[in-house]
Amino acid sequence: MSFEPITIVDQGSFFAGGTIKTWEGTFDPYHPTDAGQTLRGDHSYCFYEIPANARKYPLVFLHGFGQSGKTWETTPDGREGFQTIFLRRGFGTYVLDQARRGKAGKTAAGCTNAQKPDEQYQVFDIFRMGIWPDYFENVQMARDEETFDQFCRQCTCDTGTLELAAQSSSVAAACDRIGDCILVSHSMGGGMGWAAALKSPAVKAIVSFEPGSNFVFPEGEVPDPMPSSAGPLEAYGVPLETFKALTKIPVVIYYGDNIPAEPNANPGQDQWRVRIDMARLWADAVNRHGGNAKVYSLPEDFGIYGNTHFPFADLNNIEIADLMSKHLHAMGVD
Amino acid sequence: MSFEPITIVDQGSFFAGGTIKTWEGTFDPYHPTDAGQTLRGDHSYCFYEIPANARKYPLVFLHGFGQSGKTWETTPDGREGFQTIFLRRGFGTYVLDQARRGKAGKTAAGCTNAQKPDEQYQVFDIFRMGIWPDYFENVQMARDEETFDQFCRQCTCDTGTLELAAQSSSVAAACDRIGDCILVSHSMGGGMGWAAALKSPAVKAIVSFEPGSNFVFPEGEVPDPMPSSAGPLEAYGVPLETFKALTKIPVVIYYGDNIPAEPNANPGQDQWRVRIDMARLWADAVNRHGGNAKVYSLPEDFGIYGNTHFPFADLNNIEIADLMSKHLHAMGVD
Repeated sequence: MSFEPITIVDQGSFFAGGTIKTWEGTFDPYHPTDAGQTLRGDHSYCFYEIPANARKYPLVFLHGFGQSGKTWETTPDGREGFQTIFLRRGFGTYVLDQARRGKAGKTAAGCTNAQKPDEQYQVFDIFRMGIWPDYFENVQMARDEETFDQFCRQCTCDTGTLELAAQSSSVAAACDRIGDCILVSHSMGGGMGWAAALKSPAVKAIVSFEPGSNFVFPEGEVPDPMPSSAGPLEAYGVPLETFKALTKIPVVIYYGDNIPAEPNANPGQDQWRVRIDMARLWADAVNRHGGNAKVYSLPEDFGIYGNTHFPFADLNNIEIADLMSKHLHAMGVD
Repeated sequence: MSFEPITIVDQGSFFAGGTIKTWEGTFDPYHPTDAGQTLRGDHSYCFYEIPANARKYPLVFLHGFGQSGKTWETTPDGREGFQTIFLRRGFGTYVLDQARRGKAGKTAAGCTNAQKPDEQYQVFDIFRMGIWPDYFENVQMARDEETFDQFCRQCTCDTGTLELAAQSSSVAAACDRIGDCILVSHSMGGGMGWAAALKSPAVKAIVSFEPGSNFVFPEGEVPDPMPSSAGPLEAYGVPLETFKALTKIPVVIYYGDNIPAEPNANPGQDQWRVRIDMARLWADAVNRHGGNAKVYSLPEDFGIYGNTHFPFADLNNIEIADLMSKHLHAMGVD
């Protein structure tokens, strides 16, 4: 492979947000027990790189369920991911590990790593590579074993219970520390991103790939749960005045291909049918309160076919990056 | 802060080594259960950056117990760590997360995150910042709350049981994939590094900061367990022919300050007394079988005082980097 050089003027990492729990008693260094000791946790971890002549707003990348910041790094088939692609395009890049995952594993809400096999259902089917063991005919995925192996290994376990309030607070804390920024979220990171934007005025725009959970609506406007063959998708409410923070910033949402329009017996696909429907209701709510949110289907709106749940890592990820660059420009935030 | 630009020609990440476990039965996408599904794990994670005009051998950084690759990144007080310092000095840098930690959390040997408070004993006392709550007078540590907070948060929990064989194999797999390299290890990564070097001929030299466990000797030459006020330190044996791999490469080991010479009632310090003693016995064993291993005490051998268990992150880490650069040159591997 050959690479054009990239000049960076700063790089590093930090933790943001989090909790501290103190055990009762007095710590004795000579006979240490739990007494008087502390346990921090629930922070997010952030690795950043700043290119020469960086654009105004950096990109803050927020991964989804079962993932870490690796989501945005080298693709499973070994090409550059959005971390490097957008660094090349002049953006500072900040790649987060959510609280209770990856390098941000420490927590007082620890859980057991369940040792559950999930690579056929969660990785292949839910991430929409195909219906195991068959890839979708048009899928934008390399089909070799090594690619699937790397994809499976980039999943990583929760080290603590999932908790939107704690996790979104540490994302907001990272954005506050970074300063004005564009949040780029994926899947479970989508809803976590809305919640973070409700807490941090530093979030100046949001790009979300296939948001999957925790859609937030004004109280009284929360849609009914949406049934799918993978179970129902629920939304939640906050006071309208709180919600309105999401009407002050532009939001663009993308979904990939092979999402059915009608109820489907394959739960790996059907759960995305209700998610894109919910995202459209969500954008409607944002827009009717004065906001600017757009939901795009890559195949329907742009004729871009075969994308999985990870469009930014698919074989056509340069095309997806070009689309995102175009929309950032249209939103006036590049 | 002002930064000299760094030009990189490649960066990215990958997983190396690991296991795969398959559950019995046939997977049914329409009614998914565990049946027929797989679970990968026990790989290491590696993030790399290659500077323009890189030196011959890159540095592979292997963290210690309770840590992740963050160990080598920005220091807790916000200065550049060895990842960036040595990138500036022309080395490709590969920063690992050990199997069952950080971004390499996935495993079939999962465990419960114990939610144990340990920041006074493990972080402050064992990492030799001082004897809680008092810093050592000469300690090379910023003493503000934010620094201690960041230090505590960079610790992260095991996601699976510690197992030298599995973890060192995935380090060796990373080195095999990287190619000829210099392994830079810390603490528990020290013994894991010896074990990896026994498996991977790509390891051409080792620099180890305060190796803490799993000292390996030829069978019949294993020292007796060494008692300390923190408990005994044990070593283990392998056949002499296996051990000899460690006599083919140069090894340099550094220990910091405030390690007592005589038995001491403070377990946070006393465990390092037996570790440096064991390291000296280990270097003797390597050298009497024809190798080239050196153990240095920073205060005794170089008059460098106040270093904690993390000399590469201490206030004088540029001085430590200079020393390491000098020794890499003397070993003919820079």
